[in-house]
Amino acid sequence: MSTKTDENTSIGATPEQFGIGMRFSIHPHTNDFVEVILGALADVETAGLTEGLVIETDEVSTYVGARTAPAEQHLTAYLCAVIVAASRRSRGAHIVTHVLFSRGCPGEVSCDLAVTGLPTPEPVELDPVGIRAAAQWSLYPLLDGGSDAGDHMGHIEAAIAAATQRGTAASPAHYATKLTGDLADVLATAVDAWVQVGTGVAHVVTHLSVSVGSPSPADA
Amino acid sequence: MSTKTDENTSIGATPEQFGIGMRFSIHPHTNDFVEVILGALADVETAGLTEGLVIETDEVSTYVGARTAPAEQHLTAYLCAVIVAASRRSRGAHIVTHVLFSRGCPGEVSCDLAVTGLPTPEPVELDPVGIRAAAQWSLYPLLDGGSDAGDHMGHIEAAIAAATQRGTAASPAHYATKLTGDLADVLATAVDAWVQVGTGVAHVVTHLSVSVGSPSPADA
Repeated sequence: MSTKTDENTSIGATPEQFGIGMRFSIHPHTNDFVEVILGALADVETAGLTEGLVIETDEVSTYVGARTAPAEQHLTAYLCAVIVAASRRSRGAHIVTHVLFSRGCPGEVSCDLAVTGLPTPEPVELDPVGIRAAAQWSLYPLLDGGSDAGDHMGHIEAAIAAATQRGTAASPAHYATKLTGDLADVLATAVDAWVQVGTGVAHVVTHLSVSVGSPSPADA
Repeated sequence: MSTKTDENTSIGATPEQFGIGMRFSIHPHTNDFVEVILGALADVETAGLTEGLVIETDEVSTYVGARTAPAEQHLTAYLCAVIVAASRRSRGAHIVTHVLFSRGCPGEVSCDLAVTGLPTPEPVELDPVGIRAAAQWSLYPLLDGGSDAGDHMGHIEAAIAAATQRGTAASPAHYATKLTGDLADVLATAVDAWVQVGTGVAHVVTHLSVSVGSPSPADA
């Protein structure tokens, strides 16, 4: 899905050093959810989309760390493919996926970012997958000390404006922004905003709850 | 479950003015998830646990805003009861709940906190419910400008230390801390940390993914 090269690491720090990764959980609302999830993960591995990724599943969720550039492209393509595969395997069941993307905090407890200069990756490129998604999205610029200390809302408002221009931002809600559109475009909206804020703020997290196949779809 | 009074609003601002609330989604992994969710919500309303709360369900999740003190107690008791009711109605099915608690950002888009002084509520009090939960928990102090600008990790490390002392913090993980224990204690751990950071930082969000009835429980 991408022809990007390692140009994004040209400033000298690897995605691993920046701690670029995600943690997601996928919830097919069916009795055979175990088979759907394990089958989807196997499908995506067979398709070669785990390249450059470290994947560790535990009781609650799955951690995916990016090891090679373009990190954001690898992460987003992988996540999109897992949701598509789960939707296909469950024959369009209602599936909700929760994901957090994090950058700038590579440690598990302490935030020991030892690099200077922030990466400026390209926007992700995903082909539409033909599945309508509705999502709720929150963006958290965390290490925003310095001249604009505390101006985390400025970053968030700019991100919402970009999503509005893209056509995925549907409406504001308490603590989140609603996104609707093709699954690939919804995911790319959140990832691109996370990346954009990350060019100026070291530690940035974004959370996305993505629903496909809902029995009660309603574009607000 | 609580005998607290309105003492927490004595500084003059209401929970509504502080924007104290949560957004959650609950995922029973069964074919009859709609009946389980709607039934659980009805059970909890019948039990009188919606007192002081504004509840709005949409396609992706449910927003719950607190209108009266003790706001955190009302929110946590409500959420715990919903999960317990869903577990009972689904006869112990695997259920994962994702929740974000937010304080200090009452608007939908802009963060227009117009109050001075931060509330210092008591820890929440929940009786054990007898259901083992495993969770992953992230804490985001957002408006931490001022003398400790950017020191968001200090707040997070203190919160993890408190959870360790309480006995619910099981292990660190990428982007989250694993919590295990009785469902009520796991929820209270996250809420109390969110409240504690909120006594010094205006805008604080915490995310919690809580799993009960997992087919693959494993205390790490």
